[in-house]
Amino acid sequence: MITSGFAQGLALLCRELRDRDHDTVGVEDPGHPGEWKFIAEAGLRPVGLPVDRDGIQVDALTASGVRAVLTTPASQFPTGATLSAERRAQLIAWAEAVDGYIIEDDFDAAFVAPRQRMPALQSLAPDRVIYAGSTSKVLAPALRLGWLATPASLTARIERVRAGWDIGCPGLEQLTFARLIDTGAFDRHLRRLCDDFQKRRQTVNQFVARQMPGATTLAGGSGPQAYLVLPAGCAEEAIVQAARRRSVLVRGGRFYALRADDRPPALVIGYAGVRGPELARGLAGLALAYRETTGRTSA
Amino acid sequence: MITSGFAQGLALLCRELRDRDHDTVGVEDPGHPGEWKFIAEAGLRPVGLPVDRDGIQVDALTASGVRAVLTTPASQFPTGATLSAERRAQLIAWAEAVDGYIIEDDFDAAFVAPRQRMPALQSLAPDRVIYAGSTSKVLAPALRLGWLATPASLTARIERVRAGWDIGCPGLEQLTFARLIDTGAFDRHLRRLCDDFQKRRQTVNQFVARQMPGATTLAGGSGPQAYLVLPAGCAEEAIVQAARRRSVLVRGGRFYALRADDRPPALVIGYAGVRGPELARGLAGLALAYRETTGRTSA
Repeated sequence: MITSGFAQGLALLCRELRDRDHDTVGVEDPGHPGEWKFIAEAGLRPVGLPVDRDGIQVDALTASGVRAVLTTPASQFPTGATLSAERRAQLIAWAEAVDGYIIEDDFDAAFVAPRQRMPALQSLAPDRVIYAGSTSKVLAPALRLGWLATPASLTARIERVRAGWDIGCPGLEQLTFARLIDTGAFDRHLRRLCDDFQKRRQTVNQFVARQMPGATTLAGGSGPQAYLVLPAGCAEEAIVQAARRRSVLVRGGRFYALRADDRPPALVIGYAGVRGPELARGLAGLALAYRETTGRTSA
Repeated sequence: MITSGFAQGLALLCRELRDRDHDTVGVEDPGHPGEWKFIAEAGLRPVGLPVDRDGIQVDALTASGVRAVLTTPASQFPTGATLSAERRAQLIAWAEAVDGYIIEDDFDAAFVAPRQRMPALQSLAPDRVIYAGSTSKVLAPALRLGWLATPASLTARIERVRAGWDIGCPGLEQLTFARLIDTGAFDRHLRRLCDDFQKRRQTVNQFVARQMPGATTLAGGSGPQAYLVLPAGCAEEAIVQAARRRSVLVRGGRFYALRADDRPPALVIGYAGVRGPELARGLAGLALAYRETTGRTSA
């Protein structure tokens, strides 16, 4: 089903889950605050589940008691972790055990380096995994073009709900997107974007390693953002403010955290919109802010 | 609010009405079967209300007991009747009396001849009338671009429901439409379309008067369709089938009727997509079908 971005797909799924007497849905923490808000508006409570360098922690998921989870296995947002093969198997076993559903938001999958890519989780368990994607990150959010591939058992129900909301998405975007795919232009665009983001990511990772002692990226990363774990005791918000005074906009880990727990301080650097000299200037400003706030100087 | 066509606006309004314990909504009969189906999907029962050359009959509306009505005052679909000034006043008095709402679908308003045009009903009672429009008839349904202007008392509630369904409509259509409006190109387009439809309507009306004795248009008409009332006893479906054998597609009044009652037989001729020689050929085929079915020959 073509949907008005991932948001409408998620809204339809939340409605379906509520109709099936779910009142919660598991979400990755750190994750996407906009989605938590959206899920709450749709009448479900988002339950935060911890993430490490192998992706979402399935033990915590099992312990949480939820029976549906929204996850970004290809490239966890915002950490960039790819869900490991072992976790994938665990996750599907969990869904079978609780008779539950996995919503696979194929966020940033196109930005994962080709040799790190794994098949969509959905291919392992098409009756348990709802696959969702959109053009928001790879083309533009203003297109409001997304899609859902649901287990056969859900399709008619979701179509029925959708039929009461609107009568479909605009045609021009769909026809144009189909043309981009058919001609291979979309593939070329993705490869270019993937290469470009990889280069920026290397720049960021190398810079952090040299100029921000003690900070480490949680995972190799694959989206157009880096999640930096800071040394214990770092005042993340002070660094964010010091950077802002130098006109560098980064966010503290708190912005992406659902639970107010004992997570280590962190920074999220988004570089989708900056490159070359502008990226270098931004990183330099961030390093100064980091140094003046933490007192740590480069090796 | 910009909506995914009129359909999403109607879906939001149905949801709001249900939340206010409405279980019915008045609709014009004849009217738009797609909308009745959509209203039913949204959980409300559409109640058909008769229409005459002055538009929807407010006495019948009052007697029906509904407290919300969907109406096309500028140009009733499919009869083309314009709601008279007297009926407008009655309609608003009804809404005040029952503490109800009028949904004004400004369908085909642009196609009403300038000297017949009246201000939107909404301007008379902005706290009772929900104004809705779309680009579906004046540009293309595939744009999925519509709008709602709601009484202030409803706005926040409807925004809240919408916020749980999607996060807005695509930007390109909106920006392009805004440009069309700003440059005056949209006004020129509407004037051209209005003139063009008026000419086709004249062609149709003159042809019917000469070649289909006994058939009369219910009202002067203003949309790209004519509603022909046939003499009592005419077998409308037989005429439709006879026309179809001549490759002329018209619909019987039954297609647009909600109640299976004693309405006079009728035909609806749509001419949005045909003009000039093609329109003339279609009308000639229809006249033959009419003659061979009814035995009536032209004067």
